[in-house]
Formats: sequence, structure tokens, C-alpha cells
Amino acid sequence: MAIFLFTDFGGSDIYAGQVRAALLQYAPRQPVVDLLHDATAFNIRAAAHLLAALFNRLPSRSVTFAVVDPGVGGPREPVAAHADGKWLVGPDNGLLSVAASRARKFKPYAIGWRPKELSGSFHGRDLFAPVAAMLARGARKTARLRRSGLAVRFGPGELREVIYVDHYGNVITGLRAGSLAPKCILRAGGREIPHARVFSEAPQGGLFWYENSIGLVEIAANSASAQRALGIAVGDPIG
Amino acid sequence: MAIFLFTDFGGSDIYAGQVRAALLQYAPRQPVVDLLHDATAFNIRAAAHLLAALFNRLPSRSVTFAVVDPGVGGPREPVAAHADGKWLVGPDNGLLSVAASRARKFKPYAIGWRPKELSGSFHGRDLFAPVAAMLARGARKTARLRRSGLAVRFGPGELREVIYVDHYGNVITGLRAGSLAPKCILRAGGREIPHARVFSEAPQGGLFWYENSIGLVEIAANSASAQRALGIAVGDPIG
Amino acid sequence: MAIFLFTDFGGSDIYAGQVRAALLQYAPRQPVVDLLHDATAFNIRAAAHLLAALFNRLPSRSVTFAVVDPGVGGPREPVAAHADGKWLVGPDNGLLSVAASRARKFKPYAIGWRPKELSGSFHGRDLFAPVAAMLARGARKTARLRRSGLAVRFGPGELREVIYVDHYGNVITGLRAGSLAPKCILRAGGREIPHARVFSEAPQGGLFWYENSIGLVEIAANSASAQRALGIAVGDPIG
Repeated sequence: MAIFLFTDFGGSDIYAGQVRAALLQYAPRQPVVDLLHDATAFNIRAAAHLLAALFNRLPSRSVTFAVVDPGVGGPREPVAAHADGKWLVGPDNGLLSVAASRARKFKPYAIGWRPKELSGSFHGRDLFAPVAAMLARGARKTARLRRSGLAVRFGPGELREVIYVDHYGNVITGLRAGSLAPKCILRAGGREIPHARVFSEAPQGGLFWYENSIGLVEIAANSASAQRALGIAVGDPIG
Repeated sequence: MAIFLFTDFGGSDIYAGQVRAALLQYAPRQPVVDLLHDATAFNIRAAAHLLAALFNRLPSRSVTFAVVDPGVGGPREPVAAHADGKWLVGPDNGLLSVAASRARKFKPYAIGWRPKELSGSFHGRDLFAPVAAMLARGARKTARLRRSGLAVRFGPGELREVIYVDHYGNVITGLRAGSLAPKCILRAGGREIPHARVFSEAPQGGLFWYENSIGLVEIAANSASAQRALGIAVGDPIG
Repeated sequence: MAIFLFTDFGGSDIYAGQVRAALLQYAPRQPVVDLLHDATAFNIRAAAHLLAALFNRLPSRSVTFAVVDPGVGGPREPVAAHADGKWLVGPDNGLLSVAASRARKFKPYAIGWRPKELSGSFHGRDLFAPVAAMLARGARKTARLRRSGLAVRFGPGELREVIYVDHYGNVITGLRAGSLAPKCILRAGGREIPHARVFSEAPQGGLFWYENSIGLVEIAANSASAQRALGIAVGDPIG
């Protein structure tokens, strides 16, 4: 089955390639897709909400390797979760918990498998990649999973914060569009933001919010950067 | 057949991975190559000239997914084109038109296929990726193509502007090298730029122009950034 | 066999995709992994040390395409090397020499094959990619290798300099951790840097050094950028 990668390893850095090399070794025939390597490094809650929105659209019978792991090398445990027919693998620091708690069926597992050599700083390569590969190959016994719980749970609710800013300057929030009144006014960066259905409905450069392609409330500006217009960043509140 | 991706989705953002996931679903056995995800987002004409130069070198029997689409969700139509044995798929906003009009044989098609769910802002994932996958698999009937024309055509001629700046700071223009007198002097950013054949022929840090590896006139500086030396950007004129 | 890419082509630029397209043409069935496309463009020695550390962990029976090549188009020759069961292919400018001289068994070869068209500025696409593909397919005769030597050799020793700064701001040096006394104090950017085993052992924001996941001495700060704290860059000395 396909393996999807969601990390803060950086799309242009030395880490994703090493994960790819490990996946190739443990699951040479499974396709691998880089979903995102630029999740916010030090905001696990924001990353968890973005992951949940992306994970929701992934095909069943897939494995998502999700690693935003500032506590690597510390006491947090590795965890796998089976959610609506799809696997999630990553650190038990809350990252998987929003996707997991929104699933209709959800089973978390502790991971018993350990590599011969485990670096202190790169469990993505040494532990999570081999386990994701095992699950993608259907070799669940090799991963030595046992039923467990999640240690950190952010819950399934909305996050009224900026969770991601894309390279166009669009500001993605942790609010699902279905949670808002259809044409309400949002408040962000001291401004009032009206609704528009699509970019081409808004005036050139004008700020608006809309339901983006992964179901979240996004603040955008037609042919301009909403992030620059508002001066806000990941973690800032949305009113 | 292989699928090549040319977009403004950003190489480190959440969009290319979702396109990859859609391609995997609709054409699981076709290889996919990221040609460029950082075409200039709001300059379709510049992107069209860069695409034409890259497309010219791609192997026949391939599909190029080309999406720079600021008007997504508005009235522009999706289009496919068969050019010298290779498919192009993308928005009918001029992006494909330079590559198309330089082809010896060229046939444009309207796309009749529509997905069950079409987001307002991400036709790359919802419409162009499935159609590119269908063409790569040879399932042209499924895509429901019918002969048509291009609504926006930039024509086959040269563009005397900066169309792309690479990460070394090399300044790529929309001029094909064959269109200039072999050793003429170029004017850009208020400077006169002599010709050199290769980087190692130019003095350390010195500005020069040469025919780059995709046949375009490029202004470079040996071991330095021409872009910084000239202070110019995409869209600026070349004299 | 798998092909690993190590270059300064930029992860978000037009070059890596063209290399991928060439590899697909010459070796359609071999998996390709992007190890790094952001090696420091104008510091071959730093790139050579980073390559050596990454190469050391790659699986045997693989080909590493290594291109940091500011002298492209000049007199430097292309070279291939067989090091401990793995191939390296790239310019003979020192880039391969650290990895090569640390191998137990090492044989360098001149490359006799030339493409019909060789651009002056992109031997990565035109020459090194086809040759890497030939070696990955086992078509060594086609590449026309003959035993030779390396023209530029940096030697197997340590480099007491910054060789790479990752996107978290971690500062990677050319010192292998085994070359230092286990808990010594390092000097960098006018500061004294103590040792810690893992990130979670260090105080929040505090600078420390540790053995990173590729065996090198790395200066980091828990949940902060060591690079910003020290104000240092690739090439700066480590004491």
C-alpha cells in the first residue's frame, strides 16, 4: 500500500531523503508520496490539525508516516493507529490525535519493534520508517504492535488559530468550514474578513475567507499575500 | 507513459503531494517526475515561455501536467493538447500556448470529464491530475476529449523579459539563443552584458550571457548571483 | 539498483527534474531517491564531507549521483568510483574524494562515454545521469570506464569547519564524533559549547553539541536555531 509522508524535516534538507532510503530498504515495492515536509517544527497542535485535514482525504489502505517530534530522544513513545482503514505511524506527542479522534473507527497500538541501532535524534529514519514500511507491506507482526492508548490527545474539536501559511501567503486555520455560519465575518490581525466562494469572486488584492480544498477555513487575497496583509503567523488567534 | 509536473504549487508546500496522491490513484503504474513547482505564480506569460523550453526536451509519449492557474474557479476552461506526440494538460489561460504554437503538429481538445467533487480552488488535484493520469494510461475516451481551440494564445515568438531566476541567481530570459546574433551585447538592469560560452570562460564574479541548457538566453555571473548584481526580477525587460 | 542524488541543484528549481527525466529515460526501472539538492554551491570541500557522511550509511549495490560542479564546462573530467560495493559518479573536483578515501576498498575510473549533445552548463543531466543510470542497470561496459585516479583529493581526515546548516538552524561540522574526546567543550562563534546526548537533555534554547544521526559533530539548541545564536555559516571554523 502507499506510504504518505507528513513531517517537519524540510523539503530541501538532508532528512527526507534518508527516510526515503530506509523505506526503499524495508518496502522496495510500495509507492511513497511526500505530502508535506514543512509542517511547523515547534507547534505540534497546529501540525496535528493540518495532518487531520490532509489525512481525511487520503485513500484507504494506506500508511501515513507523521513525524513532528521535538521531543525525540526523550520519554515519548512511538505509536501506530488504525483509523478508518488507514494506518498512522509517529510519535505519541499528540500529532496523530486529531486525525485519530475524528475517525469513526480508531485503534491505537504501542510499537514493540526496535532497530539494532537507534540514533538519539532521528527516529523518523531508524524506527518510524521501518515500521511504516512493515505496515505498508502487511507485515504487522514484524512491527510487534499491541493495543494501547494515546498519551497526548488534543481532541477532535476546532482550533481557532493559524495552523499553516502556504507559499502564496494564504493563511490556513484549524477551523473546519462546516463549523462556521456560511457567510459570517471573521476577525484576524485586527481586520474583518468577509466570505467569498472562490478567488475570482474577490476584488484584486482584497482579503476574504473561503472553504479551502481540504475543508478548512482559509484567509486569502486575490493575487496577493494575505499573510503579509495581516502580519500574522502560525499560532496566532482567529476570531 | 511518464507524467511530468510543471506548476506554481511550491516545492515545499501541501499541494504537490495531493496531486501525487491523485495521480497514484488514477494511474498507479505511471512514473511521475516533478519538473518544477516554483513557476512564477502570477505571471502566466513568463511561465508559458519557461514551460515551452522545458517541454521541448521532454521525451515523446509523455504527459505534462501544467498548472499555473490564478483564475481557478472562474470562467477559464480546462484544456488538453497533443503536441508533437506529447500531451499537455492544464488551464486554458495561455500557459500551454507557447509550447503548443511551437510544435510542428498540434491539436487542442476541450476536456469533457468532470469529477464528482470539484473544489473551487484546486482543479490541479481534482480535475487535471485525473485527466493527466487517464491520458498517461491511454484511457483517452474516459477523459472525454473533443477537438477545440485555445482561448488564450501568446504565440510562438520570443519574450524579451526575465522569465525565471534560479536559486544560484542566474537570470533566465524568454529569448531563445538562436534568435540573437551569436556574440551580441545584451542590456539588462542598466548594464551591458557580453557573451561567454561557459561559466569558466568568464572572469570570477563577472556578468555574461550564454545559451543555457534549455536553449534560452541566460544572464549569469561566474560564482556569483547575476540577479543580485542586476537587481532585476521576473517580468523585467531585457534589451 | 537504487540511484541516490546529492547535488547543489536546489530542491525547488528546474534542474533536479531534468535529471530525473534523464534517469527515467536511461534506467526506467531503477528507484531514484533525492538525498539532498541543497549542498553548498560554492564550497566543494564542505559538500564532500557531507556527502561522505551520508554515503557511509547508504546500502551497498547502489549508485550515488554527486554533482556540485562550479567548474562545469571547464577542464575538470567526469569520474566514477567504486567504494565498498557502491558506485559514486560525479565531477573530478574533489567532491567524491572524502567518501572515496574513507572506503576500505576503492577504485576510481575515467568515464569514456559521451552524449551526442553535451551542454556547456549541465553535465548532470547530459553526462552524469546517463552514466549513473548505466551503472544502476549493470551496463558498465556502455559507460566505457577505465581505471584511473582522482585529480583532486581532500583526504579522509576531519574538517574543523561548518559544512551544512539545516533548516532548523542546526550547525553540522566536518568533524566525526569519534574524533573528539567524548564530553569535550567545543568553541564556535566565540562561545563555548558543552556536550549533551540528546536534545531533550539540554535546557530550552541552550546550545550544545552532540553526535548527530550521520555520525558528525553537530551544534544545536533545544527548540531554537543554533545558527542564529552563533551567527555562523558554512566554511566558518570550529575550535
